[in-house]
Amino acid sequence: MTQEDYMKEALLEAQKAYDVDEVPIGAIIVYRDEIIGRGYNLRNTRKHPLAHAELDAIDQAARVIGDWRLEECQLYVTLEPCPMCAGAIVQARIAKLLFGAKNPKAGSAGSIINILQEPKFNHQVEVIEGILQDECSDILKKFFKESRKKSSSKSLEHNPI
Amino acid sequence: MTQEDYMKEALLEAQKAYDVDEVPIGAIIVYRDEIIGRGYNLRNTRKHPLAHAELDAIDQAARVIGDWRLEECQLYVTLEPCPMCAGAIVQARIAKLLFGAKNPKAGSAGSIINILQEPKFNHQVEVIEGILQDECSDILKKFFKESRKKSSSKSLEHNPI
Repeated sequence: MTQEDYMKEALLEAQKAYDVDEVPIGAIIVYRDEIIGRGYNLRNTRKHPLAHAELDAIDQAARVIGDWRLEECQLYVTLEPCPMCAGAIVQARIAKLLFGAKNPKAGSAGSIINILQEPKFNHQVEVIEGILQDECSDILKKFFKESRKKSSSKSLEHNPI
Repeated sequence: MTQEDYMKEALLEAQKAYDVDEVPIGAIIVYRDEIIGRGYNLRNTRKHPLAHAELDAIDQAARVIGDWRLEECQLYVTLEPCPMCAGAIVQARIAKLLFGAKNPKAGSAGSIINILQEPKFNHQVEVIEGILQDECSDILKKFFKESRKKSSSKSLEHNPI
């Protein structure tokens, strides 16, 4: 499978988030050409700050590998990781991160800070950005457009003219 | 209870890690003068990269509060957080972090980077360092001294002179 094929799998995960009205972000983990972890954002549904796509994918992968070190793994995620998820990628010693769209508000793989390639940490991660960037960005734009529509119709309901 | 009293509770958690031969780091979360989350490092035992003291404490606290926002909470931890845990503290919108010893290898509350007070993120955390610094540092030093002893006697076993 190509990098684009794997990112399509991460996009399928993002769609699962979209379908339950969560910000659509999805991730997968690949080990020796096999997908061993999947996750999508469920922060509001689970009411839990750790319910990010990347952490769920890392959780699954660690159970499959049976070790805290995921050294031969690549993580694909549709949106540039936040500091928590970027830090988890370093903690898990993941070899390579591939992401789709940039995250100007919390991106920690270069946009705001770069946790993945801090020379003072004991592990650095190879980073490839922009895989299926448009598709990864479009699903987010569509979600936020729909959300604004819903919230404006709700505010009309609550504040009928 | 004073800040020192709460840090003693975090040290009790660190001792639990010590007792199962894990790097002794402990954390608690306080909400309106009540401890609602506890955790200690179990990375090797669980063979899991997310099994850090702070994440377990945040997990418990989120279940108690029933929300991903832990806005009125303080997190006490014996060692300055790594980037993953510092990022989780930001994600959970925790108000205040209090830590004991500095972490020169991975500290992300000022030692290497400061994730807690990055003005471009949408949440900043008040940070107080040095609470029971000596006790928090001593338990780590004792652990690593013991580990070196064990590993040198093991290498003698494996490589008898």
